[in-house]
Order: sequence, then C-alpha cells, then structure tokens
Amino acid sequence: MTTEASPRPSAAYDELASLLRTAATLTSIRATLSWDQETVMPPRGGSFRAEEIALVSTLEHERLTDPRIGELLAACESDRGLCSNEAIAADLREIRRDFERATKLPTELVAEIARTSSEALEVWKEARQRSDFALFRPWLEKQFRLAADKARCYGIPEGGELYDPLLDEYEPGASAREIEGIFGPLRAALAPFLAEILAAPRAIDPSPRALRLPLARQREFSRFVAERIGFDFRAGRLDESTHPFTEGLAPGDTRITSRFSEDHATDALGSTLHEAGHALYEQGLPKDLHHGLPLSQAIGLGIHESQSRMWENQVGRSRPFWSWALPEAKRFFGPALEPLSVDQIYASVNQVRPSLIRVEADETTYNLHVMLRFDVERAMVRGDLRVADLPAVWNERMRGDLGQEVPDDRSGCLQDIHWAGGAIGYFPTYTLGTLYAAQFWEAIRQAIPDLDEHLARGEFGALLSWLRENIHAHGRRWRAGELCLRLTGRPLGHGPMLRHLGTKLRPIYGI
Amino acid sequence: MTTEASPRPSAAYDELASLLRTAATLTSIRATLSWDQETVMPPRGGSFRAEEIALVSTLEHERLTDPRIGELLAACESDRGLCSNEAIAADLREIRRDFERATKLPTELVAEIARTSSEALEVWKEARQRSDFALFRPWLEKQFRLAADKARCYGIPEGGELYDPLLDEYEPGASAREIEGIFGPLRAALAPFLAEILAAPRAIDPSPRALRLPLARQREFSRFVAERIGFDFRAGRLDESTHPFTEGLAPGDTRITSRFSEDHATDALGSTLHEAGHALYEQGLPKDLHHGLPLSQAIGLGIHESQSRMWENQVGRSRPFWSWALPEAKRFFGPALEPLSVDQIYASVNQVRPSLIRVEADETTYNLHVMLRFDVERAMVRGDLRVADLPAVWNERMRGDLGQEVPDDRSGCLQDIHWAGGAIGYFPTYTLGTLYAAQFWEAIRQAIPDLDEHLARGEFGALLSWLRENIHAHGRRWRAGELCLRLTGRPLGHGPMLRHLGTKLRPIYGI
Repeated sequence: MTTEASPRPSAAYDELASLLRTAATLTSIRATLSWDQETVMPPRGGSFRAEEIALVSTLEHERLTDPRIGELLAACESDRGLCSNEAIAADLREIRRDFERATKLPTELVAEIARTSSEALEVWKEARQRSDFALFRPWLEKQFRLAADKARCYGIPEGGELYDPLLDEYEPGASAREIEGIFGPLRAALAPFLAEILAAPRAIDPSPRALRLPLARQREFSRFVAERIGFDFRAGRLDESTHPFTEGLAPGDTRITSRFSEDHATDALGSTLHEAGHALYEQGLPKDLHHGLPLSQAIGLGIHESQSRMWENQVGRSRPFWSWALPEAKRFFGPALEPLSVDQIYASVNQVRPSLIRVEADETTYNLHVMLRFDVERAMVRGDLRVADLPAVWNERMRGDLGQEVPDDRSGCLQDIHWAGGAIGYFPTYTLGTLYAAQFWEAIRQAIPDLDEHLARGEFGALLSWLRENIHAHGRRWRAGELCLRLTGRPLGHGPMLRHLGTKLRPIYGI
Repeated sequence: MTTEASPRPSAAYDELASLLRTAATLTSIRATLSWDQETVMPPRGGSFRAEEIALVSTLEHERLTDPRIGELLAACESDRGLCSNEAIAADLREIRRDFERATKLPTELVAEIARTSSEALEVWKEARQRSDFALFRPWLEKQFRLAADKARCYGIPEGGELYDPLLDEYEPGASAREIEGIFGPLRAALAPFLAEILAAPRAIDPSPRALRLPLARQREFSRFVAERIGFDFRAGRLDESTHPFTEGLAPGDTRITSRFSEDHATDALGSTLHEAGHALYEQGLPKDLHHGLPLSQAIGLGIHESQSRMWENQVGRSRPFWSWALPEAKRFFGPALEPLSVDQIYASVNQVRPSLIRVEADETTYNLHVMLRFDVERAMVRGDLRVADLPAVWNERMRGDLGQEVPDDRSGCLQDIHWAGGAIGYFPTYTLGTLYAAQFWEAIRQAIPDLDEHLARGEFGALLSWLRENIHAHGRRWRAGELCLRLTGRPLGHGPMLRHLGTKLRPIYGI
C-alpha cells in the first residue's frame, strides 16, 4: 500500500534498511524504559534508569551516525532506478535528513541530554508535587542550556533563530517565524470570540460536571470506548499516569495512559480519546513492513496531534458522538446518569471555562495555553528570559491572557512534563495539530457525507479507514504542509478551527 | 561492610569495575524488558520484543567478553597488594569465573538463545492455556538442543556430564552427581514420612481452605505483610503474573509478582512471602557500592531460594507468625475470618496434600516435584529421553511419586515457565534452597533465642538484620557450600529439613 518498491530495490537499500532497523530496535528499547519510568518504576530506580537510558541513547546514536549509513545512502541516491520510485525517493529524502541531523550531534551531548532528562523527570515529579520551583530550577536551567548547545550543533537556518532547529525536531521544516505567522492571526481571532462567549447570557447546566462516578467503572468505560473506536488491545495497553501520554514502543506494542478522578469523568474520557487518537496513528503506521524506515514513521508531532485532537474534539465533543455514547455510559454507570440528556452532556463537554491547567482546558482557551508556552520557551532559548524569572512571567501572562491568578507553581509553570524531559520546541505542535484536525475534518465531511450518522450509531470504521488510507499508511512520505495541501487543497490556516468552534459553540451559548 | 578495599585499590581494578558496570547496565535493561514481557506487554509485542532481547544480549555478551577485561583481570590477579584483600580476591575469583564462561560462548549462540527464549515464552503461554503440548514441542526441542550446544561450548568437567555446565550457571560449582547424592537420601527419607502422614488418623479442618476472600483485600494484605517483613516499596513493586517471580532489575528497583484467587488466599500470601524473601536478598545486596561486580551479586540460585523458602515456610508457616498475622488478617478481611483460630489456620497452611501443581505443593511433597523435573531434564539433556516422550514419562512419574493422575498437560509437563525461557538446570536449586533454609534456620534460632516471640509480635527486624549481615551484604564473596559451612559448621544435608517437617507436622497430624 505504501510503496511500489517491488521486488527488491537494491542491495544497498536493503543493507541500509537493516542498519536502521537495528537502530530502531534500540529506539524501541529506550521507549520501553521511558514508558516504564513514567508508569511503574519505583522512585529509587530513577538514578540508575538514567544510566540505562543514557547508555541506550549512546548506542542508538552510534548506529544512527554509522559512516556506513552515509555510504549506502549516497549509493542509493545515485541509483536512478531506485529514485524513480516515489515512495523510496521520499524514504531516502527523510533518511538523509535524519542522518544529517544525527551526525551534527556529538555522542557525549546525546548521552548527557538523555541522562539529564531521565534525572530531571524525577526531580520535576517531586518539585511539582511540593510546588517547589527552586528545587527544579537548576535542572530546568540545565535543560535549556543543553537545548541551546544542541541547537548550535544543528546550526541556525538562514534568517532563522536558535529556536528553529529545536522546533524542527518535532515539526520538520517549521520555523519560529512561521509559527508566529499562524499563531498571531489565530490569537487575534480567538480573543474577541472568547470575550463574546464569556459574556453570553446563557449559562451551561453545571449538573453533569458535578457527577461523581466510580473509578473502576470509568476505567472500564474508557477501555470500551477506546476499543470501539478501533484501538487494538492485542497490540496495546491502557494504563494510568499523572501526565497522560502515548508511546509507540514497537511494532505490535502501542501504549496509552489516561488519568481518572471521580469528579471529572468526561475529562478522563476526553483524555482517553485523545491518547487513543495518537495510538490509532501509531497502530496504523506500516511498521511491520518498514520498521526503522521513515515510511513507517509519523510525519511529525503536528500531524500526530491532529489525530489525537480529532478524536478528542471533532468526534468526542460532537453531538452525534454523545447520542451514541450517553446510552452506552448509562449501561456502565447505572442510575447516576439516568436523568442526563444528550443536550446536557453535549453542552457540558463543550463548556468554555478559562482555567489554570492546560490539559484540562476547553477547546477555545487551550490554544492560549500553548501560545504562552511557545512564547516563554522561545524567549528562554534566545536568552531573552531567564529561567529564574519564569514563574513571574508565566503568572503575568496567565492573568493577561486567561484572567487567571496562579496560586502556586504546581498550577503554573511546573504543570507540564515537557521541559523536564528535554522536549523544548514541542509545544507549538499542539496548536498546529488542533488546526490540522479542523482542516482535515472539513475534507473528511466531504468524503463521508453521512459521517454524523456513523458517529451517532457508534460506528467509527469509515472515519478510521479514511485516516488510515490518507494519512497513517504513508508514514513520512509527505511533509505535514504537503499532506495538508494534498488532503485539503489549501495550506494550514485557522479558518476551519474557528468555523468548528463557532458552529458548535454559538448555538450552545445562544450567541 | 563488604569490602576492606580502601582507599582505591588500583587503576586496573577501577577500569574493570567500570567496564562491568556498563555490562550490568545492559543486564538491567534486559531484565526490564523481561519483566515487561512477563507482566504487561500486549501479545502482539512478542515477536519484536524477541529482537530487542536478542540485541541487548548480544551487546551484553560483547561487553562481557571484551578482551580488555582479560587484560585488566590478569593485571589485577598479579597485583599482590590487591589480592591480599580478601574481599577483592573473592571478587577477582568470580570475575575470572564469569569471564572464562562468557568467552566460551559464541555471540551468535547467545543471541539465538535469547531470541528463542523470548519467542518460546509466548508460544508456551498459549500452549499451556490450550493444554497443547504439540504446539510447544518444537520449541522445547529447540531449547534443549540449544542448551546442549551451550553445554558443549562450556565443556564437560572431568568425570562429569553434559548437564553439569548448565547446572553450574545457576548453582556455581555444583554437579549432577552431587545433586543426586543429596536428593537420593532425601527422597529415601521423605517417602516413609509422607506415607506416615497420609495414613495419619487425624484430618485437618478443611474450613480455612474453603474461605473465599475478595481479591482487592488480598492484594492489600499481601502488600501490608511484604512491607512489614521489610520489603522497601520505594525501591520495588508488587504486581501480578501467572507465574510469580522476582526480578532485581537494577539498584533501587526490585520487583515481585504474586497471584491471587478468591479461594486460595493463604497460597497467595505464601507466594508473596516467597517472592518477598527473594526481594529482601536483592534489596540487601550492596548494589549501590559495587553494581556490576560479583560483590553485589547473589551467590547462586540455591542461596537465593533459601531466602524465599525461609520467609515462606520457616516464617510464614509457623505458629508464632500466624498468632501475629491472623488478628491482622481479621482487620483486613472482617467478619469472614472471625470464627477462625490460630490453631485452625496454622494446621491448614501446613496441610500435606499430594497434588499436580508444583507451586501449590506443600512443604513435604514439594521436593518430589523438583526431583521429577531434575530427573527428566537431565535425561533430556543427556539424550536419554526424547522431548516427544516427556508427557508420558511425566505422567508416569506423577502417578508413582505422588499418586496423581495427570488429566492434561496443562496440569502436567506444561505447568512451569522455566524450560520455555531456556532455564534448563535450574530446578534442583529449589530443593537446595529448601535445605539451606532449614539448615540456616537452626543457626538463626541459636543466634536469636527469642525469635518466636519476635515473630509473634510481627517484628521481623532481628531476623532480617541477621540475614543482611551474614548473607546479603557479602554478595558472592563465598560460594554456597562455603557459606553454609561458615554459618552452620556443616555441609548441606537433609537432616535440618526433616527435623523442621517432623517437629511441625507430627503434632499437627498426631503421629
């Protein structure tokens, strides 16, 4: 499905694939160690785990920068027959990109970043729990210093800045300026829309949010919904962690986590749908065929996030979805849900409520959280903002952008795991994904005109098939921007996202 | 505590320690991958996991056979100052042993065994579930073929047999003939004792075994008892698996599993005590000081098993233990346990009942299970028994030794995980451990005269301290036989074990 490469393209390509498969095996091992650290590892295992991860990262980097890869790649690139195959040409393009990037980094720096990230995660957990920024601060400083070192090794693209090569790791080819060009108009459009909603006369019925539902049943319901939308539990798991995530560990092994609390049952379901969306992408990548090759890998985090956002928002916050899901939920939760109507729950899951915590934010304010993070991490990378000043600047922005007073750093700049784990330049992909999701959704509605009826029957196969055929199966064949053009005929913009919000929220709020 | 090596012994020793620490890091990674496979990995992750484990095993073997280790070892061995330190001399002796053994194995064979074991485990799980020996048979044949290949690489010791180098992996220095010399008299003594018990006029009250106790509370109670005897949950976990096990993953990370069913609450507690006993040994090894060096490692599986058996049997099946544990259990389980007396539960957990499943066997018949396995695996290694004939021979022996008719292979030769995972030569260590436990226990009773009062108060600190000081802290400083002589003044024998059984069971059965 994803490649016309038949029969065997060349001995050099085969050897290249074999070397990359071994490197990918090390990547899988590292992913398993990380998953374990985030979900089950006892606290005292942390320092040695950091040694393990540093060692695997070193071995992985040695394989990825093996000069033999360079030789084989050059041989393949000069093989016209090979390059006339469009899929293989794309594969080689991406292998070249990865190789060029990897060889710019000294192994010691890779190991240092891996070790620091694993250690910093343990400190962050404690600092967050105790709301103690001072405890985490030296580690955050070290992470930003290492990120800057890494960015300098990659080199600043012409006309760009130090943040760009970091962003490029998560969103290939993107630049801070480009992000600014997307975020600026989005922000300008969101602000008045948010003001209008907050001033709306109609209030959302608070009773669904006041429900307390038993954890055990919530877990079962999450599992049921994840399975129903297509998550393959023979090739995956659903666990719990403070910060929900998805890890595509290996072919046949994609794991998601969610988090449950008695009084936030719909948040937990949203979180499960979000991670299951990521997981459906991972499970749809042709790993069995091409493991280790770009053709089996995700395009970037923006597209990855488009998959999670779509299931969380376009599906999971839609009226048709709830007209199927509410009766199912009543089966699971019994009398507690009996009085609830689809209208009530639909309005409730779409309630706009500026808040402190990004992962609990509604669709409208969510992107303001992301923009805040983009601005401050960019400023810290550029050296315009000192890590020590982060809490003050964070709290100031929360006041200005979202009207929220931050009571402590746990609910402020210590809330996210990303920087602790060295993921700097990652945040913008959340909003890119949100925008891609809305833009793809308009194309999907055209391709599947009776989509709402499918959702209302709890049938998700047609939607998943579309995603599999048009996105998942192709791995990194096209970059995000090109994929967007192919699927929607337009470059990424914020129009579809605002239409999505307006169409849904205006009737709910009666504005 | 474990070494007088101060300050730094030599540059060569330091470098050696550093190389071995890296190899141990790979061992820890492999252990994490195995733990994951046994507890949480989804089924479709199995085939790629086998690739990962094979890769790590290869890397580990390359490190362990690095010629630089040979050079450094030779330099250390010729350094008289270094070798005058008894702890370091012991360390070098064991490093030499490991290096000699490792260098006899080709890396390809190591990788092949690792891959096969990981794959065979998945097949065994399915075969066991379906009670389908034919499905597992080719894998079992392959495991025995690979084991024989491995044994031939190690070489047969003078006057020994092919089984010896396999046994030596788990019980350093032991031989099949030696095991025979211990098992023979034990068997001769056990048989009439068992007959006497089975003919005893007094029956054990069946009511405690008929209790059904909720799983959630059982889990909590197991956790409570494990913590109480000294298991450090900051540096460990307790999970569930079909075949309970302990994995010392890394410094600060020792994990145990148990298994729970509503109608076997005391079996579950026994299983937890058993694995916690292993874990206390792992947590007591001086890994923080010497990780990767023999001084931080377990002597062998016989001694490892002595620790688990002691907590399971000498402690967990004693009257003093239950006079503390029963009131605690009543706190956890409420009214269901109210009518139960210490005498009733004490008799119940000591009931002798020949049965099909080794891990459910009582103390008396347990060793007959082990001897059966020793005999058949030895015969299969020697080529005296074909794998195809295993079920018939197994069932025949169960009839003769334990008077049990085997209804299906699931309850027969497919019940154990060991051979699937390539652990051939492992079984005898279960009985060695049982004998060591009884013999050590007599020494401990002399060292702590009021031990029973401690146990009756639920105070396990004095016992644990004795084990820590006399066994755990020393790693592989002494071989098992030497340790036994040091602690008990005698070589290993079956006298203490039979005294232990007789003193306990004769009053219970009124014989």
